[in-house]
This record gives sequence, C-alpha cells and structure tokens, in this order.
Amino acid sequence: MKKLNVGIFGAGRIGQIHANNLSRNPIINIKRIVDPMADKLGEFEKQIGIKIETDPQVIFDDEEIEAVLICTPTDTHVDYIIKSAKAGKHIFCEKPVSLSDEESMRAYKAVKEAGVKFQIGVNRRYDRNFAYVKKMVDEGKVGKLELLRVDSRDPEPPSLDYVKSSGGLFMDMMIHDFDMARYISNQEITEVYVNADAIVNKDIKDIDVDTAIVNLKFSDGAIGVILNSRRAEYGYDQRLEAFGSKGTAMVENDLDANVIYADKDGYHTPNPQYFFLERYTQSYIDEVNDFAQAVFEDRQTSVTFDDAIMAQRCAIAAKESLDTKKPVKVRMID
Amino acid sequence: MKKLNVGIFGAGRIGQIHANNLSRNPIINIKRIVDPMADKLGEFEKQIGIKIETDPQVIFDDEEIEAVLICTPTDTHVDYIIKSAKAGKHIFCEKPVSLSDEESMRAYKAVKEAGVKFQIGVNRRYDRNFAYVKKMVDEGKVGKLELLRVDSRDPEPPSLDYVKSSGGLFMDMMIHDFDMARYISNQEITEVYVNADAIVNKDIKDIDVDTAIVNLKFSDGAIGVILNSRRAEYGYDQRLEAFGSKGTAMVENDLDANVIYADKDGYHTPNPQYFFLERYTQSYIDEVNDFAQAVFEDRQTSVTFDDAIMAQRCAIAAKESLDTKKPVKVRMID
Amino acid sequence: MKKLNVGIFGAGRIGQIHANNLSRNPIINIKRIVDPMADKLGEFEKQIGIKIETDPQVIFDDEEIEAVLICTPTDTHVDYIIKSAKAGKHIFCEKPVSLSDEESMRAYKAVKEAGVKFQIGVNRRYDRNFAYVKKMVDEGKVGKLELLRVDSRDPEPPSLDYVKSSGGLFMDMMIHDFDMARYISNQEITEVYVNADAIVNKDIKDIDVDTAIVNLKFSDGAIGVILNSRRAEYGYDQRLEAFGSKGTAMVENDLDANVIYADKDGYHTPNPQYFFLERYTQSYIDEVNDFAQAVFEDRQTSVTFDDAIMAQRCAIAAKESLDTKKPVKVRMID
Amino acid sequence: MKKLNVGIFGAGRIGQIHANNLSRNPIINIKRIVDPMADKLGEFEKQIGIKIETDPQVIFDDEEIEAVLICTPTDTHVDYIIKSAKAGKHIFCEKPVSLSDEESMRAYKAVKEAGVKFQIGVNRRYDRNFAYVKKMVDEGKVGKLELLRVDSRDPEPPSLDYVKSSGGLFMDMMIHDFDMARYISNQEITEVYVNADAIVNKDIKDIDVDTAIVNLKFSDGAIGVILNSRRAEYGYDQRLEAFGSKGTAMVENDLDANVIYADKDGYHTPNPQYFFLERYTQSYIDEVNDFAQAVFEDRQTSVTFDDAIMAQRCAIAAKESLDTKKPVKVRMID
Repeated sequence: MKKLNVGIFGAGRIGQIHANNLSRNPIINIKRIVDPMADKLGEFEKQIGIKIETDPQVIFDDEEIEAVLICTPTDTHVDYIIKSAKAGKHIFCEKPVSLSDEESMRAYKAVKEAGVKFQIGVNRRYDRNFAYVKKMVDEGKVGKLELLRVDSRDPEPPSLDYVKSSGGLFMDMMIHDFDMARYISNQEITEVYVNADAIVNKDIKDIDVDTAIVNLKFSDGAIGVILNSRRAEYGYDQRLEAFGSKGTAMVENDLDANVIYADKDGYHTPNPQYFFLERYTQSYIDEVNDFAQAVFEDRQTSVTFDDAIMAQRCAIAAKESLDTKKPVKVRMID
Repeated sequence: MKKLNVGIFGAGRIGQIHANNLSRNPIINIKRIVDPMADKLGEFEKQIGIKIETDPQVIFDDEEIEAVLICTPTDTHVDYIIKSAKAGKHIFCEKPVSLSDEESMRAYKAVKEAGVKFQIGVNRRYDRNFAYVKKMVDEGKVGKLELLRVDSRDPEPPSLDYVKSSGGLFMDMMIHDFDMARYISNQEITEVYVNADAIVNKDIKDIDVDTAIVNLKFSDGAIGVILNSRRAEYGYDQRLEAFGSKGTAMVENDLDANVIYADKDGYHTPNPQYFFLERYTQSYIDEVNDFAQAVFEDRQTSVTFDDAIMAQRCAIAAKESLDTKKPVKVRMID
Repeated sequence: MKKLNVGIFGAGRIGQIHANNLSRNPIINIKRIVDPMADKLGEFEKQIGIKIETDPQVIFDDEEIEAVLICTPTDTHVDYIIKSAKAGKHIFCEKPVSLSDEESMRAYKAVKEAGVKFQIGVNRRYDRNFAYVKKMVDEGKVGKLELLRVDSRDPEPPSLDYVKSSGGLFMDMMIHDFDMARYISNQEITEVYVNADAIVNKDIKDIDVDTAIVNLKFSDGAIGVILNSRRAEYGYDQRLEAFGSKGTAMVENDLDANVIYADKDGYHTPNPQYFFLERYTQSYIDEVNDFAQAVFEDRQTSVTFDDAIMAQRCAIAAKESLDTKKPVKVRMID
Repeated sequence: MKKLNVGIFGAGRIGQIHANNLSRNPIINIKRIVDPMADKLGEFEKQIGIKIETDPQVIFDDEEIEAVLICTPTDTHVDYIIKSAKAGKHIFCEKPVSLSDEESMRAYKAVKEAGVKFQIGVNRRYDRNFAYVKKMVDEGKVGKLELLRVDSRDPEPPSLDYVKSSGGLFMDMMIHDFDMARYISNQEITEVYVNADAIVNKDIKDIDVDTAIVNLKFSDGAIGVILNSRRAEYGYDQRLEAFGSKGTAMVENDLDANVIYADKDGYHTPNPQYFFLERYTQSYIDEVNDFAQAVFEDRQTSVTFDDAIMAQRCAIAAKESLDTKKPVKVRMID
C-alpha cells in the first residue's frame, strides 16, 4: 500500500503531539523531522523511532515528501510556508500564520500560486462537541442563527514573557474563538467591538488584556459575542451557544469524570479536563489525520488558508477596536 | 355561590397545613375544627379565624358539614372513619388507615355501605414531577413498563420513640413508595421480597430496619424495587425511574435553587429541598383541593380506599418477608 | 394586632396579582382599590372581596392608608407618585417609573422631599435562584467579580402595538436585566455599548430591535454583557453567570418538572416554566410582602428609587448607543 | 530497553482489540498470535504486522514469551490457563474463566501451584467514572457504604443463538456487575436473591431471563441491588450509586457529546455511547497495559483469580436463586 511521506518542521510540544498521532496512521510515513534543538530531543527520537535532523532544507529537497507540518515558532511560519509551497509540498501549519496581515497574505499568495493544499491548525473544529453543534446548525435544527456566544477561558494565566511574545489575547487565544464563530455560523464576521481589560493581572495593562467580551456582527445578519478570560479557577472552560429561530444548541464542558457526589454541602461533579492537551486529545488526532486524508484523496482540506486569514483579521480588528474604543469592520479577502 | 362546608378532626401539624390550604379555596368553608388540645392552639385559631372545639361529636352532628378531614393520630382513624361514614360525611383521611388490615377493612366496609366518598392522604401523587412521569407512562412514552425503581430517603432518622410507635419503616415510610409504585405502574404489586437491615442505627435492630431494598412483582409482568433509607446526608431524596420497552422516565430531586457554582473543587449545586413540608408544599395544596373538588362535582376521588388498603397490605407483606426471609404474596381485595 | 392599610391604583393583570398576594398577608389590610374600568372588574371584586372604586382621590384622601401600590399604565406613574408622596403615602410602583429621565427625576425629587418610602417593582431580585447567586457573590464565593452575563429571552414576541407603546426593548425588557446586573454586582453600570438588530421580526426595524447584546462596564472594573431576545422557541429563558477570581456562579432555568426522559433520540427534559407569571409567581409574592414589611418595620425598602433611576438611565444610554453606534456613558445620580 | 514478549491466543474481536492496544505500548513486544482461523485473518495480520499461527503449542514452547492473553472461546479457557501456567507464562484471561465452578477451580489451583500471575478481563474497573467513585469510596467520601446500586443495560438483546451459548444473563452479563459491586464495596457478596423474568423477549423464557433485579448482601453489612436489562432503547446504560453514611456517589452515562439542544419540545442531549466497544475503549487499553505493567514490575495484578472466582460464584448463586425462588448464600474461597 502506498503511504504518504510527511516531513515535520519543529519537534516542540505540538510537533511531538502531531508526530505521535500521525505515527499511528497506517497510511502515513513520517520520513523526516527537523528541529534546530535536535540534540536535546533524544527521548522523543527514541519514542518516535526517527533521527531528528537540524537542516530544514532536507525536507524541501526530499522529493518523496509530499506533505509537511509546520510546528515551529510563529515568526518562522511565513518563511516555511513559502519555501514549502515552492517545493510543491502540501502544508499543515499551526495557527496563527503570522502576526501581520501583510506577511500572512504573502504566504497566502505563494500557496495559491503553487497550487498546494493548506490547512491551518484549528483543532477545536474536530472536537466531537463543537462538531455536533455545527452539524445541528447545518441541518437546520436551530433554524436561522440569530445569536452566537462563545465562552473560552484558560485555567491559568500565561507568564508575562509569554504574554509579551504571544501577539496578545486576540491573536493568541481568541483567534480560536473567531474561527469557531465562523465555523459554526457559516458566516463571515464583518465587524467587531471590544469590551476588555487587564483584570486578572493588572500588571499586563500596558501590553495586553486578559478578560474580554468581543461583539460580533455576521454577514448574514446574526450577532454574537465571545467571552474570554486568561484564568478560570474551575478549569479550562470551553462552551458555546448557538441560538436561532427554532431553538438553541449548547456545548458544555467535558469533565474529568461523569460522576455526581452528594453530601451535606450539595451535589458536586469533577472539574473540566485540565487544559487543551487533555481536552482536545482526540481533536489533535483527528485534525492531522484529516489533513493527511485530504492529501491522500486529493480533495480540499477541511480548513483552508482563507479560514486562517479571516480569523487573523478578526483578531487584528479586535486589537484596533480595543485601541480606538470603536466598532471596527473586518476586512474581507478580495 | 354555594360553598362546601368542611369539618376537620385534628389540628396538629398536618391538620393545620390542610386547614390553611383549604382556607384559600373560595369554594370551601371550613366550618368546624375539633382538637382535644384546643386550649393550646390559640395562635392557629387566630390565624385561621375559627374557634377550635374539643368534642368531635359537633362535626358528626352538623348537618351542613358534607366533608371531613381526619388528621388525628393513626390509632383513632378507623373510629373517625366509621362514625363519619355513618353520619354521611365524605372523608379525607391521613395515611395509614390503621396498622391492622382487619381494622382497616372494617372502616373500608363502613365507607362502602354508607356510599360516601373517601380519599387517603398520599400527597406525592400530586407532585408535579411524579405526576409528569405518570402521564408519560399513561401516554405510552416508556412503552410497556418493565422495571420500576423508587428511591426514597429521609434527611435524618426519626427518634427512637417515633420508631417504636410508627408501625415500622414499611408502614410508616415505604407505604408512600408502595402507593407510588402502584400509581405509576397502574398495576397491582403481587409479591414482595425484603432485603433490609438496621444499618444507620444498629440500636433499633430489635424493633425495626432503617435501610431497605424491597423487590416487587407486578400483576402485569413488570418487576420493581424500592430503596429506602431513614437518613441521607445530602437531604430528602425522592427519585424514581420507570423503565420500559420504549425508554425510561426519571424523577430527579427538586433543589433549593437551580444554581451551579464552579470553583477549584468542581461544580456544585444546592441540596434537595429539606423535607416533605418543603418538598411537597404544593402537593399538599393540590391534594385537599382535589378532594374538595371531587365532593363538589360528585365524582370519584382520585385516590380511593382500595389504594389505601393495597399500599397497607404491601407494607404488611414486606414485614412478613423481613421476618421469614422469603418472598411473600400480597393479598388482593376480593 | 395593628394592620397596614394599603391602597392600590390599577386593577389590571399586575394589580390583581399584587392584590391577591397581599390579601394573604395577615398584617395587611387592602383598604381601597381604584381603577377607571371598575365596572368590568366584577369577577375580581368578588374574588378579592373589595368594592373597586374609580376615583383615585379616595386613596390620597384616606388618612388610614399608609402605603400605595401603583399598578397603572406607565404614563401615569409620575403623577401618581407625586400625588401619593404629597399625601404622605409610602409607594410601591411598577417599573418603569416613566419613559423620560426628566419625568422620573421629578417623581424622585417629590419622594425625597416628602420623605416617604419608595420601592420599584423589580420582582426578579426576589427569585430564589438569582437571590442565591447574589448571596454567593456577597459572601465572596466568586471572589472579585470580573465578568457578568445575563441571558433573558421571552418565549414569544409581543404584538406590534405593544412594541410601539412599550418604550422599546431596552426600557421595556432589558431594564430588568440592567437592574439584575446592578443587583448581582453591587456596582454601577458606567458605560454601555449596543450590538442589536430586528432579527426575529424585521417589520419592527424602524421602531425597535428584538435581539440585542449589550456590553457593560462596571464602576469597580468588571465588564459584562446582557443577551436579550424577544423570542425563544424553547421558552422563557432566564439565566445568569457571575464569573470572578475564585469561580463562577450560574443561574439555570426552572423547568416545568425535574424529570428526565430517555428514548432512542436521546435524553429529554421539559421546557422552562412558560413566562414571567409562572416563573416568578413566588417572587411577586415576596416582593410586595417585603415592601409591606419595610413600611411596617419603618426600615428602608430593599429596592430604592435610585435603583429605579439607574436602571432607567442604562436603558436610555443603550438607546443612544444603538442610534450612535458608539459606547455611551451612563449618567450617575448627583 | 528490555521488552516484554507476549503471546496471544485467539484473534477474534476482543483478541484483535487487545493486540492493537498492546502494540502501542513501547515496553511490549507481541511475539506470537495464534488462531485456528488464521487464514481468514489476512487484514488483521497486515494491520498488526505479525504472522498469525494456528498451533497454540508454539506459544507454550516459546521460552521468550513471558505472558499470554487468552481471548479464545470460554469453553477453552481452562485448558489454556492450565497449559500456560505449567509453561510458566503469566496469564491474562477474558471473563468468564468457565461456566463451571469445578472447572474454574482446577485452573485456579494450577495457577496457584505454578506461581504465575493471573488477571481476569473485567475492563470496567479501569473506566475513569467507576474508578473515580471507587476512589471516593476508598477515601471515605461516602462514609460507611450502606446501599449499592448497579444499573447495567445493553442497547439491544443478543440473538437467540448467543443466549443459548452464553451461560445465561448472570454468567454472561451480570458477572461484570457482580465484579463491580465487589470492586466498589471492597466487600464480599455473601447472599443473592433474584427477582427476574424474560420480559423483553418472552421466547427465551425456558432458557434464560432478560430483565433482572438481583439483591446483594455484603460481608460488612451493606446491602445492594443490580438492575439488568438486555435492551434499553436509549442505549448502553452503565450507572452506579454508592450510598453511605456521609453521602452518595453516582456514575452517570458518558454521552455521544456534551451538548444540550433546546427547542419547543424541551431540552435534549445525545444518547449514551453505543455499546461496550465505544464506551470502554480506554478501559480496554488501560486494562492490558496494567497487566503488562504488573508482569514488568513483578507485582500482583490489579484483578486476581480470586476476583474471577467470586464473581462467577455470585452468578452461579443467582442462577440457583432464580430456580429456587429463595435467597442463596455465595460460597467463599477457602
């Protein structure tokens, strides 16, 4: 049986996850993994059974490699995308493409010109709960969508260093929620308005916010709102409500166990699964396998470069709304 | 507008509740209330606006009184029922009719001979949750009933004195659950088997049990089980599951508030409403008003003397099963 | 025992509810009820046992009447409040005071000058669920409040006629939610931004919106959002989430029954209680009795004229934000 | 790194699952798989990458194989256990050991004599929900266990052929629940009483029951009940309640998605995960890996031969109770 040869750029946390997940897919052959820190990756090397290389060129040059995964730091994505596209490789890239629309559009054009497939890493679309609500919306169960709410809260705030290099809450964290809002609604977000502040940690006030309510207007007339917080004491909070003319569909949190305990203080259930690695284990598996399947079947990827650009532009517009204290239109792709 | 004149025997806790509830029904006139402790009931007298009398004969003799409520101690019920029946009064009587089948049947025959209406006080049938499941069963939503489970647990155990005079767990507490099982299933309980012990309080071992699983066989082929405990730390537990060929219908507990609180220890909701007076406030209201309405409309009462006898006979059979450690048939009414 | 003599202006739907509820309070004597349509209120007259009069002056002139309930159309509230205040009566008035801040402030000043007590009718504060969360916030269970969300959706949209005379969604419907946000947070709403449209019924586009997301900034640094819709197919939706540094507290809907039914299509529970009369039955009872108790004990009312003014000013600011598409500051009381 | 060489007897459905699960454990080397139908297992052969052999002797004779998995038909288990034990292999065997206590005890003695490790396949002990409640019981959260309830219902009844060869409901299906009751309670089941019938399918009346309530008495004074049905329209029902002196802990069903949909007919959630392969995917993984780990670390297996024998004896006693209509003592291991 023909296998799909894959190359991976970056063997940090997320690169290792994707590599491990792909290694269980019998139609995949991970041919090369490249990481500048290869010498510190001995344990992963043993586990995955592949010699980690340091020069990315070996992947570009390997004609047997049809598809690549870009799991490197954000500021290198555009470069890897363009070179991969030119080398004729299909591309899976972690979000965001970059922190700049201009840069991202450069990569976008290179991919279009090369005619290679591209998928951005927004794993939550593959979660069974969100996919279930998406299906209900698509089947008309909620009727015409009128109000969309996305709740997304991390269990604990990132370090100050991380905040500084993250591109800010909108680009780093809420970009997932912009994508989710577009995914569930099948509509473009046309305008955003931001109601946000540094509430959890006032020390980051000059560089970022950590609690945000972002208003959305959709291209087909619905309105929506995203609620983000960098910290939730009860854990990783991942909910959504799609309200429409026939009813409402809500994603609830997945808990550590479906157990109810009752004592003199009331009824109690366990907390949500700790963070994205626990909560989205299966989504990460399904995401890369779906990308591989798209390449294998030579069909369009389920998540496209347009999706990547639009979520990024929502984040950029949100930042502008925060700065100007006004609603800001989101620029569409020509 | 013609009103229904009512007399009440007994102004203890439950008598006062019924009196207060009936006093808000514009078609009812509470004409007389009798209690031997009338001199200690000054506050209630003021509240209800009626002079409490001490001689029950005044009710039997009052030709304007069409209906009576018997809220006196259990060992006086039979006597009050027979005298009321002979005086042509319609009767609402608190459960149980008596602790002896022979005694209860004496009252039963007197009521049949007099042709007066009779209703036994099993308020839970009027609860919106249990009534909702009953309706689902009657409408065929669960299909053919196959398995019935009734969970009934008190928040705290009664005093030793109460246990001694109560007639035992089956007659005092589970009689409600036998009635509920008959009500929901529309079937007779034909056989019981008891798996029970004094677990909460070993000191009552010689006189009663406090934790019990009682197996039921129904006349139409279903099987069932009642789980009782005299103590539940989390509060008054009143659940039920009616499982059948098309699905299952479950009564859940009514909580102090429909509120969910989440913190680092998990999700939390309040406890069930404390005990029967809180949990069944509305059932008590609906129960006596339904009795009054039955008299007013000259229709059959919703709960009959046969219901009273059969629940009592289940309790008697359960006691025999506990003593003999064998399944025991429940005697039917000829 | 001394009773509190009360007069009621208006015997429409809400006036009758308050009258019936007060009539069960033994410390209250409803002395007079006035309504211009008295001749059509024969049935209510019989039920409440009081002759309905037509001239409001009889209440102002009755020196035994200490407190009044104003349950007349909104455009008469200010007049009744000012006259009642001048007559030295304590006042309970249905919301809103008026549709104009200037008018409401005239009434406000008259009440302050007369030194009478005043309570505005915001019954939801008395609901056990909302009160439970309020208590959790006050006790510090959620920590410092950071994000507040209020969901409020009616089961079906009002008639076009009603919409025209209602004062608009913000004044008619969301005013309850502004009050709830102030109540739960113990903070003032300082700024609002509106994201809203006529989505349910596009025909009202020129006169009102029916679907709205309103952003809030609070005086103590929290942010919030209110989600309103004039129609929810699944019924009257009354939820809330108070998220803070220690956790989150959520009000869930009260359903028609706490019953779960499972069949081949999944698990099912009944809809929320139909509308405000069913959902807030007990709140209406507790509200007027609390007002009566405040008068009786000569203490401050639990809900004040300041509360009425501030909720109204939020509604006015929301309307301005809708028109200007900008965030609008809410004017404080000097 | 030293690996554990494993041999597998039987490559039917469950054998393949275990093989696939073990193949992802880097400390395991599946050295041989034996199945008489090897010629029909080409696809599995390719997937697992091992040549399926037909003669079981090759495993007994392979000195490098330290541990075996017995996944063959029940009537061959005893023979494979005894031969494996004599060959010094550690043994994981699917439940039940056999349909006869005498036979099972022969295998039991052979294992004890050989001093090899033995684990019986009761995967549910590894489920996160049941394990969570087990932990709560062990930590004293429910206090002294008083009442245990196990609900276990299959989504659809097996074929008549399966019923005939299955050993009956108690041995085939409820054996899991007897094991669960022993696992959660940390007590022996000393007595059972059966209330059961062929209700789902009356045609099997002469050979088996399909709806059963089985009463348990525990060695430390608790009482319990197992409710089984061979068919539940809403799906695979796997619940449990452990009630004790301090509270109660309940396992609820895992659903296809944590999604709530509300429309005019109420609130709806998806059904439970379809059947044991979906519901217990992770348990099967954890089960065999825990066995491998026990061999690797040379520690006792988490589930022992005593556990296998006792669950089987409960099933045998249940069958006797069904036939005699009396409570039956469960025989202990000397």
